[in-house]
Amino acid sequence: MPSRQKNSKRIEGIDGNVWVEFTALAADPSVVNLGQGFPDISPPSYVKEGLAQAVFVDKLNQYTRGFGHPVLVDALSQVYGKVTGRKINPNTDILVTIGAYGSLFSAIQGLVEEGDEVIIIEPFYDCYEPMVKMAKGIPVHIPLRYKESNQVTVSSGDWTLDPEELASKFSPRTKAIILNTPNNPLGKVYTEEELQIIADLCIKHDTLCISDEVYEWLVYPGSKHVKIAMLPGMWDRTITIGSAGKTYSVTGWKLGWSIGPAHLIKHLQTVQQNSIYTCPTPLQEALAHALFKDLKRMDEAECYFNELPRELEVKRDRVARLLQEAGLKPVIPQGGYFMVADVSVLGVDLSDFKNDEAYDYRFIKWMIKTKKLAAIPVTAFCGPEARKQFETYIRFCFIKRDETIDAAEKILKNWNN
Amino acid sequence: MPSRQKNSKRIEGIDGNVWVEFTALAADPSVVNLGQGFPDISPPSYVKEGLAQAVFVDKLNQYTRGFGHPVLVDALSQVYGKVTGRKINPNTDILVTIGAYGSLFSAIQGLVEEGDEVIIIEPFYDCYEPMVKMAKGIPVHIPLRYKESNQVTVSSGDWTLDPEELASKFSPRTKAIILNTPNNPLGKVYTEEELQIIADLCIKHDTLCISDEVYEWLVYPGSKHVKIAMLPGMWDRTITIGSAGKTYSVTGWKLGWSIGPAHLIKHLQTVQQNSIYTCPTPLQEALAHALFKDLKRMDEAECYFNELPRELEVKRDRVARLLQEAGLKPVIPQGGYFMVADVSVLGVDLSDFKNDEAYDYRFIKWMIKTKKLAAIPVTAFCGPEARKQFETYIRFCFIKRDETIDAAEKILKNWNN
Repeated sequence: MPSRQKNSKRIEGIDGNVWVEFTALAADPSVVNLGQGFPDISPPSYVKEGLAQAVFVDKLNQYTRGFGHPVLVDALSQVYGKVTGRKINPNTDILVTIGAYGSLFSAIQGLVEEGDEVIIIEPFYDCYEPMVKMAKGIPVHIPLRYKESNQVTVSSGDWTLDPEELASKFSPRTKAIILNTPNNPLGKVYTEEELQIIADLCIKHDTLCISDEVYEWLVYPGSKHVKIAMLPGMWDRTITIGSAGKTYSVTGWKLGWSIGPAHLIKHLQTVQQNSIYTCPTPLQEALAHALFKDLKRMDEAECYFNELPRELEVKRDRVARLLQEAGLKPVIPQGGYFMVADVSVLGVDLSDFKNDEAYDYRFIKWMIKTKKLAAIPVTAFCGPEARKQFETYIRFCFIKRDETIDAAEKILKNWNN
Repeated sequence: MPSRQKNSKRIEGIDGNVWVEFTALAADPSVVNLGQGFPDISPPSYVKEGLAQAVFVDKLNQYTRGFGHPVLVDALSQVYGKVTGRKINPNTDILVTIGAYGSLFSAIQGLVEEGDEVIIIEPFYDCYEPMVKMAKGIPVHIPLRYKESNQVTVSSGDWTLDPEELASKFSPRTKAIILNTPNNPLGKVYTEEELQIIADLCIKHDTLCISDEVYEWLVYPGSKHVKIAMLPGMWDRTITIGSAGKTYSVTGWKLGWSIGPAHLIKHLQTVQQNSIYTCPTPLQEALAHALFKDLKRMDEAECYFNELPRELEVKRDRVARLLQEAGLKPVIPQGGYFMVADVSVLGVDLSDFKNDEAYDYRFIKWMIKTKKLAAIPVTAFCGPEARKQFETYIRFCFIKRDETIDAAEKILKNWNN
């Protein structure tokens, strides 16, 4: 192989990926897959019909505006205008991207310079870390820490940041903090008080905030989604990221968006203009129509933004009960569609599995092999220091049809046989 | 604005874009737009129907394999297996991307290191240059030069590379050359002899070749598309890029692909895994079915790969005649759906238009304003040295409905009134 055929340095060490490995392991059709986070429930019919209609309008099969299809940025500016009470300029304050993934990439590439530090809270959605590395930034980790409570069941709210530890992570080299609320994988929904501590530090150190809020609508009773961008002094330094895949249960559409001040969004737009140029037109058109429909009924129960979390709450409670009955110790999520569970209490002997991997990786390989049930290891969402803290946790996805959960129930009820 | 809110250096100076400016100018509905390169003809009905069907299969609305939907990489491996006579591994030798744009980006980000030189042939598709700069590579330009022929009409084949000039551009710092055949904007289809000269230099200097072949099927009688990857010694150093948008007249679907040896494709896969992760599933499914349909009839006249160029040849000849009759000097393209024309013979007085812009920019602004006809300036596709050579040329797109060309005809017939 000729020597000139080497990769660029920016991609060194970021080729591993938990999804590639565990999606392959769970591909066996006899395995019940509560691993990768995609819904197997049906997306709303009007979303699907919108796409089927768009494709027969010829011009909707051609390029549209690069930073977002005009009717879609209009819809997004109205939805988020209503949510925030702010006037959001559809052309300068919004970028439509290939999933929230594309928004994270554009934000990090457009804003993070070589050597800049970026604070990442553990456990984190796994792409944050390699994306920062690809921009030659330096990830600085801080873990959520478990605070013993008196409750019998553990909640994702029992995991919190230590304010002093957080303050110690900010430095003159800090360019940004990446926030994720509701959080994946824990399901933590940050309270306004918790967000205010982060905001104060961002302002004090003149730091940006990249706020991944893709599960913004999926919040369960007792918690409330707060946008850090709405805290005083934060709008001008925050990129807020949303997702059509999570909002409408169409992860395969790969549409997301960044919303923020024009002086930041323009840098994300420059990255997009030089990486993918524009997102698919028919998908954007269909998404716009769905958003307009739900915008009109946003305060009503039938609005999908309100209906989906009600549907998911039932699934959450059912999966939590099943895990508990099998002897696992689930952490009840306040938001999102994932639940982590502590498997250490089971005391499974994994000496047969190769020992150079973290316990959770080995546990899941064992579980797929002997129980035919798939999940995702939580240490895939941690830097090296926090791995010890999370290595007995595994992540289940509960946005699944009743039949899928029935199949998981069968496995969990027979767990000890 | 806080000081920390600056962009990263990698995007400095690459925020300008010819499409943003000229798409806005041509947006007036009274303007006949032969500018931006999107078809206004109808895409094949089976392509549209394929998407309308895919969306009603629930799982086709969810994530698929990141490097390409399994049925699509299978279809691509068979189509290009047939075209090249090589066995193409669908999992390791192919990456499905957000348009050919996404393939170019992944190739450049994955392979070009800071300080690497990349040879770009002028006039070039405009994104090559900022993409190389975003990877902190150094664009090295070489222009196609016009060789006087005895023919009355000028052909895109009359523009050629000077072999000695080309050899002088290769150095120990050359990482890659970007080739585009059929070329946009000239429509040049490189002959096998011309490609052999490039291949010899690539092999001599151990250089990669990124070959943008998105117009591969759109080649007119008298020319033949040759893949540089098929020349001896070139497969292992070439990334060949194709496009669903150009193949099926659906630019708004934003699907493209890179094909090449596994040892190079894996680096593009790493970039994709850390930028957008995966492409939209329903679009990939529909594209796969269309490819299978045309694979079966690839040697027949009704195959869209053969039908579209026949349809376009008529449009090409008609637009060329109209331009000639109006006094412009068109260059007859051998491939693609663009035609450049020399407007210097018209001697239009542009002293009213601000003088800090190239002549072609001013000419088109004048043409939009006074003639209600839009095109794209060719110097947008050139580095600074070649601008002088191309500044009296403008680019027309002829993949347009007869009604659109009729409207252009009216304008061109009245040109001198």
